[in-house]
Amino acid sequence: MTAPTTLYELFYWPSIQGRGEFVRLALEEAGADYVDVARRPEAEGGGVAALMKMLRAPGLSPFAPPFLRAGPLVIAHTANILLYLGPRHRLVPESEAERLHANQLQLSVTDLVAEVHETHHPIASGLYYEDQKPEARRRSEHFTRERIPKFLSYFERVLEGGSRPYVFGDDVSYVDLSLFQVLEGLRYAFPNAMAHVAPGVPRLVALGERVRGRPRIAAYLASPRRLAFNEDGIFRRYPELDAVVAAR
Amino acid sequence: MTAPTTLYELFYWPSIQGRGEFVRLALEEAGADYVDVARRPEAEGGGVAALMKMLRAPGLSPFAPPFLRAGPLVIAHTANILLYLGPRHRLVPESEAERLHANQLQLSVTDLVAEVHETHHPIASGLYYEDQKPEARRRSEHFTRERIPKFLSYFERVLEGGSRPYVFGDDVSYVDLSLFQVLEGLRYAFPNAMAHVAPGVPRLVALGERVRGRPRIAAYLASPRRLAFNEDGIFRRYPELDAVVAAR
Repeated sequence: MTAPTTLYELFYWPSIQGRGEFVRLALEEAGADYVDVARRPEAEGGGVAALMKMLRAPGLSPFAPPFLRAGPLVIAHTANILLYLGPRHRLVPESEAERLHANQLQLSVTDLVAEVHETHHPIASGLYYEDQKPEARRRSEHFTRERIPKFLSYFERVLEGGSRPYVFGDDVSYVDLSLFQVLEGLRYAFPNAMAHVAPGVPRLVALGERVRGRPRIAAYLASPRRLAFNEDGIFRRYPELDAVVAAR
Repeated sequence: MTAPTTLYELFYWPSIQGRGEFVRLALEEAGADYVDVARRPEAEGGGVAALMKMLRAPGLSPFAPPFLRAGPLVIAHTANILLYLGPRHRLVPESEAERLHANQLQLSVTDLVAEVHETHHPIASGLYYEDQKPEARRRSEHFTRERIPKFLSYFERVLEGGSRPYVFGDDVSYVDLSLFQVLEGLRYAFPNAMAHVAPGVPRLVALGERVRGRPRIAAYLASPRRLAFNEDGIFRRYPELDAVVAAR
């Protein structure tokens, strides 16, 4: 029995895109050999039980999913996993300066994603959405009016001043894949707000479409491996949280 | 005129510890030659104006402070700055596995710090605390009761099973410095909650005291370079947010 040389095991909640999706997109674009562990049957060592077992391990165990097992390594936090995968699969440029910049951009994606989660859970992640709806509505007003434009215009500005197809030039990076996912998620959760913001960030929107059209990404999106957005994930479509349109 | 070889310029808000403090502690422990730019007089190129100028630069400019200028590099996001400084100043072990683990732990510190900010700004960072007090109080109840114990017991577990003085053994790392700062901040902001949680995380508390006693850190803490905690920072002492004691 010989283990495949590049087998990765991704540990993430089995029924949502969530933060794990940023890792899935990188693994798919890389054509990497990976297993989405918790989506396997529990009888075969999968399911949420596999996640929980790793989280309860002593010592250097992760704080939360997603995490990736790569041989002897267990790597947690989305940006950290991408920091590891990037150089191994040519999903980031080679220079230290550009790798730091990729990580920097990914950490801004992380912040944005956390703020998206706060729109429906502004009081506590341990409470149901239904138990924090008034606060969620108030937070979402600010998020859609101020934060979506602020983040997306920042990323637009990163893309300005060049005719390069991707953030780092001709080659796609994990940051590009993540920006695609951010746009997809925001469009799902806040279609009303995004209809107003998207026309102001044309380079970013074009980049997203470029990612969508890449052969491996297109194949992934059309496959059963791509879960649908839903109201258990981070990007949730609650129309009451997308009611206010930016007056600018 | 020869520039010093290791001059760093830290860009961060001049009147708070905030996220910049995690970088300051690393630079201080390293004995690095650095300038805290915005704390210099505006007439000498300092002040908040210096910050804003960098944020408005085109292309690869940061999303927000803190950021560090190191020669031609401008590096943003606390964890990313520490990822850069760590290997250069022996503030992280040499192996890739341990560096990834340090970054992973630092990103959990990042998440905790973001949640601390949310306790007083659960609706919008663009609103005053006074405009979101009921929501802040509700969020803080959950934070003090559930999240502080969850994060600190996680870090305690990382330290378990060994008699090593620091997370990675005999040598201090930037993660240790950050854990000290987290403890200091939580004690300032939530003394009531911390009085209940601290006895349950003895290894973590001891690590914090070990960091506090390191010669360079002790000298820094006693110097005017160390700003006091205050109610403009991330860790704020609002007694009404520290009212509920964990019933466990």
